[in-house]
Amino acid sequence: MVSPIDLAKRVVLGRPFRSDRLGDTLLPKRLALPIFASDPLSSVAYATQEILLILTLGGLAYLHLTPWVAGAVVVLLAVVVLSYRQVVLAYPSGGGSYEVASKNLGRLPGLVVAAALLVDYVMTVAVSVAAGVDNIISAVPELNPFRVAINIGFIVFLTAMNLRGVRESGRTFAIPTYAFVFGILLTIVVGLGQAMWGDAPVAESAHYDIRPEQAGLSTAALAFLVLRAFSSGCTALTGAEAISNGVPAFRKPKARNAARTMAAMGVISITMFAGVTALAIITHVRVTENTCDLVGFVGDCDADPQRTVIAQITAAVFGGDSIVFYYMMVTTALILVLAANTAYNGFPLLSSILAQHRYMPRQLHTRGDRLAFSNGILLLAVVAGVLIYAFDGSATRLIQLYIVGVFTSFTLCQAGMVQHWNRELAATTAAAERRRIHRARLINAFGAVFTGVVLVVVMVTKFTHGAYLVVVAIPVLVIVMYLVHRHYMAVRAELRPDDSGFMLPARVHAVVLVSGWHKATQRAIGFARATHPDSLTAITVNVDDADTRELAREWEHAEVAIPLKVIESPYREITRPVLDYIKRLRTAHPRDVVSVYIPEYVVGRWWENLLHNQSSLRLKARLLFEPAVMVTSVPWQLRSTRHRDHARIEHTPGDIRRGITKTLDSRRS
Amino acid sequence: MVSPIDLAKRVVLGRPFRSDRLGDTLLPKRLALPIFASDPLSSVAYATQEILLILTLGGLAYLHLTPWVAGAVVVLLAVVVLSYRQVVLAYPSGGGSYEVASKNLGRLPGLVVAAALLVDYVMTVAVSVAAGVDNIISAVPELNPFRVAINIGFIVFLTAMNLRGVRESGRTFAIPTYAFVFGILLTIVVGLGQAMWGDAPVAESAHYDIRPEQAGLSTAALAFLVLRAFSSGCTALTGAEAISNGVPAFRKPKARNAARTMAAMGVISITMFAGVTALAIITHVRVTENTCDLVGFVGDCDADPQRTVIAQITAAVFGGDSIVFYYMMVTTALILVLAANTAYNGFPLLSSILAQHRYMPRQLHTRGDRLAFSNGILLLAVVAGVLIYAFDGSATRLIQLYIVGVFTSFTLCQAGMVQHWNRELAATTAAAERRRIHRARLINAFGAVFTGVVLVVVMVTKFTHGAYLVVVAIPVLVIVMYLVHRHYMAVRAELRPDDSGFMLPARVHAVVLVSGWHKATQRAIGFARATHPDSLTAITVNVDDADTRELAREWEHAEVAIPLKVIESPYREITRPVLDYIKRLRTAHPRDVVSVYIPEYVVGRWWENLLHNQSSLRLKARLLFEPAVMVTSVPWQLRSTRHRDHARIEHTPGDIRRGITKTLDSRRS
Repeated sequence: MVSPIDLAKRVVLGRPFRSDRLGDTLLPKRLALPIFASDPLSSVAYATQEILLILTLGGLAYLHLTPWVAGAVVVLLAVVVLSYRQVVLAYPSGGGSYEVASKNLGRLPGLVVAAALLVDYVMTVAVSVAAGVDNIISAVPELNPFRVAINIGFIVFLTAMNLRGVRESGRTFAIPTYAFVFGILLTIVVGLGQAMWGDAPVAESAHYDIRPEQAGLSTAALAFLVLRAFSSGCTALTGAEAISNGVPAFRKPKARNAARTMAAMGVISITMFAGVTALAIITHVRVTENTCDLVGFVGDCDADPQRTVIAQITAAVFGGDSIVFYYMMVTTALILVLAANTAYNGFPLLSSILAQHRYMPRQLHTRGDRLAFSNGILLLAVVAGVLIYAFDGSATRLIQLYIVGVFTSFTLCQAGMVQHWNRELAATTAAAERRRIHRARLINAFGAVFTGVVLVVVMVTKFTHGAYLVVVAIPVLVIVMYLVHRHYMAVRAELRPDDSGFMLPARVHAVVLVSGWHKATQRAIGFARATHPDSLTAITVNVDDADTRELAREWEHAEVAIPLKVIESPYREITRPVLDYIKRLRTAHPRDVVSVYIPEYVVGRWWENLLHNQSSLRLKARLLFEPAVMVTSVPWQLRSTRHRDHARIEHTPGDIRRGITKTLDSRRS
Repeated sequence: MVSPIDLAKRVVLGRPFRSDRLGDTLLPKRLALPIFASDPLSSVAYATQEILLILTLGGLAYLHLTPWVAGAVVVLLAVVVLSYRQVVLAYPSGGGSYEVASKNLGRLPGLVVAAALLVDYVMTVAVSVAAGVDNIISAVPELNPFRVAINIGFIVFLTAMNLRGVRESGRTFAIPTYAFVFGILLTIVVGLGQAMWGDAPVAESAHYDIRPEQAGLSTAALAFLVLRAFSSGCTALTGAEAISNGVPAFRKPKARNAARTMAAMGVISITMFAGVTALAIITHVRVTENTCDLVGFVGDCDADPQRTVIAQITAAVFGGDSIVFYYMMVTTALILVLAANTAYNGFPLLSSILAQHRYMPRQLHTRGDRLAFSNGILLLAVVAGVLIYAFDGSATRLIQLYIVGVFTSFTLCQAGMVQHWNRELAATTAAAERRRIHRARLINAFGAVFTGVVLVVVMVTKFTHGAYLVVVAIPVLVIVMYLVHRHYMAVRAELRPDDSGFMLPARVHAVVLVSGWHKATQRAIGFARATHPDSLTAITVNVDDADTRELAREWEHAEVAIPLKVIESPYREITRPVLDYIKRLRTAHPRDVVSVYIPEYVVGRWWENLLHNQSSLRLKARLLFEPAVMVTSVPWQLRSTRHRDHARIEHTPGDIRRGITKTLDSRRS
């Protein structure tokens, strides 16, 4: 018989995998691109929208700044891609930013990067899923009331898939990713073509006005607005470092192939982002945080959600009920879910490395039944789920938390690379090589400064909009990791075996706890006696005078050869009098060990536990705090239990049950 | 150092009491009356109101039936009081209805009475507190929004007081009870006087009409309405049996004094109930379930609560801002809270008796630090609190659940008394004595039939209004009690010591579980060795090849004299491979016992538990299911723990810590 929990586990997860099934398949570039780049490529789906949203806060007049903001994002994207190409070439082991920062800058920066990446992975799941659901709702607005439920549904689905340890065949990733890229490029080409032929597409929201119309902004306010829009546009960069973590999965020459893929990703990302932004300007898309702010919007602004920029552009170019529109919505939602999936690979892997380095609990290092890091996957799913629930599944609100982590790791990684090149430089004499290193260092230094500035901008402009949560979360995570590490190290130091040998105690004093005169007590005494202790005592706590007298009478009548000591307990406690007795025993015999035997009932039904063992559990927990005391549970399996449990545990129940029956019979006869 | 939990416990509960402090003070009649009768006397505060409420459902025209319904309730009250006088005289041991039904009718009726009483006690708390709060809100309507919170607050207060084991000095009870009785009688006398002098008091709601005005009722509907009003009026009888449970607390002659107190209670109850009902008719009080149904009501019917009948009558007689009005509201609220308190005595006591008879979990039988049955008190508080929360603290809605339990125990108790007299009759020959018994039997038989009929009426008329919950709850409780009993009896039978002796196993095979090479492992091996087992093996589970190789290397290097067996675990499990190994060992040596030693870390901070012992806990739980296996925890106290814990447990920390330090030192040297 299989327990219901085990059964459910098998249905969701499938049969367990043997450890030797672990192995890697190497990826060609055309499959590596979609696998590692679905996250950065998918950001196109929301980056433009976020820029428009912020600029609109100032008023429609400020939308003419869109190209400048977008241009700055493109430059930044190019810088980051160039910088990370250096990382790929210098650290082909795939450790990514954590490795670079730890090795070159030291432990604290390494931990900060790790914390930032962990936060970043969580946000990738939350934002990507939320944005994917946004696009689904753009296509089928009737689903709007179920937004959060659909979000959670996707997370559950992704979690189950990853717990099953499905190694995505490259194709699973390749088809939706290329389909998305193709769709976006097609939309850009057709849309720009229409505009050039003088038949510019017009978005459904082009004629909306914004309420309330803002008065002109002061210069400072305008600068802040532009910086905030830029910060939001930086979401286009999320996941750009993914390839640097995946170098070992590339075909040889690994580093070179990875660097080329990185370049391809950069070109495609920049093209798509620029094209979508251009179309957004041409079609006069209007977006606001709250649909009700749109003057001219027809319908119930609570019930009818605003459609995403991608949806509006595609509808303007191809028509709102064209096949291409639905194709775009499906592929956009798919690539966003795939992007979330990349975090399902990254988070558990990074947690596992951190656990191996003893910065996180050991459980995150062990692989589950299907060879996936199950605990890490579950942790990620729970945190992302809570975030989505707390933010009502709003991608726009979640994005405010997203960029701080990303740019923290960018900046520290690039700074680490500068340090790396400095060391290389010190060790190199060849002039050509030195020139190459000089150039590389320049790129990374520029990258570090640029991303550092952006980090400050992002923190300042988004702090009150939610980024403060991340600014708090990263140091907290670092402190927790530090404390965990300190604990493990202290334990390791304390437990280091020494020459004092095995601490063999002089003698063993066995103490049997007695609550009544019955078979469980008999068995405990029998087992205790079988270990040939140097002294053997039975003790009972007098909580109720009548019961104790009855016990003493039975004890005498049964002619037990062992003395029964009665411990008085005027306050009707069990734990403390027993503890006191054991302590006195230990003080009297400091070189010996005390072995406490506790008879325990093992019951078959959960509710039966409420009827037994309450005081013995508490006592056991407290006895563990005593040095040089062993606590031995002598279980008594109640009849119902015995049958049920054997059926559950055995591989070949018949054989072993026969064995056990024999044991019991021979003992009874 | 005291742990925060212990500290909080001491603040709330005070210092623990020694068992020998348990003892009883005997009560004179004038103190026994308020202590045992606060519940039935307080019912006057809501019984009339419930009759009016139901009749008003038919329309104001039917209020003229009030005297007839109230008259029927008075007759019933008289019958019940007379019947219970017999119980008091025949069963002076104070077992009450449960004892009478168990002894005379058998186990099942006894359990039904027990279940009904338990339900009844819970309802007493819920209804009395809710009605008390109603009166507070009648005096200070601004408190209406906090109704549920005030209710819960009273329950918390009562619970804390009872956990402290405050033995109410009779005076605590006597003053509010007599003050309430005095107030009610004063109101009745003054009010009736005013009416006789032609200056009849008029209630504030007298001019209200009821919306919608009902059309005339059919005869059947009218009969049902009257019966339902009667059922509601029967709330006046709740708690009437309390004195029969308290006989042992009376001064001698106990039974006679108790019977007299019972009679006094009956007379006072009937007088008050009749008087209040008369005044309600005279003053034309109008009450409805929903204030908004009152035509002519001025104010916000959601915010301004309807005032209780007691409040309206008192206000009509003495004026709404007179001192007497506030006096009445305070004493009414107080006596209702005291009524709730009687359930705090009854419920834990009955649970404890049931636990002693093994019908409820044993924990309900043990007395807490302050000699109160703490677990029973907490159970009662939680269930009553949940009910109040679920019913929004509405006394009217809670009352629907109240009467079924009361009349179930009435009926079965009276039936039991009939059986009792039958037996007495069979054993008696003296003619005078036989005549007395005949008369007593007649009274109880009449009581049984009358209360039985009322029980049916209550069930039928209130079934859909909530009584079905109780009709379900009582059998469920009975079944649970039966199952608990069967379990305890099965365990007792199974554990009965027999002559097969102490099941001394032939040999002991010690198995030490090893997860790494460190001091905890060394200590476990040392302790295991100290018990001189017949065989000693160390086993480790190979989850990670590299780790296992490292362990084997260290093992060899340390020249441990014990063989290390490596168990393969292709699916990376710990529990199952170890279990399989133990099972094989047992099958090979069926007459022997296996002793499993598990090194465990004991940590000082709760979160550190997350970092250790996960797999050993699971393994221990599973090993307990194996017959003839002992599980020994060999704790390793991490340094931080040791200091903290000793400080916490010791009475004289200095001495014993010195002792322990010596132990550790001597072992190290």
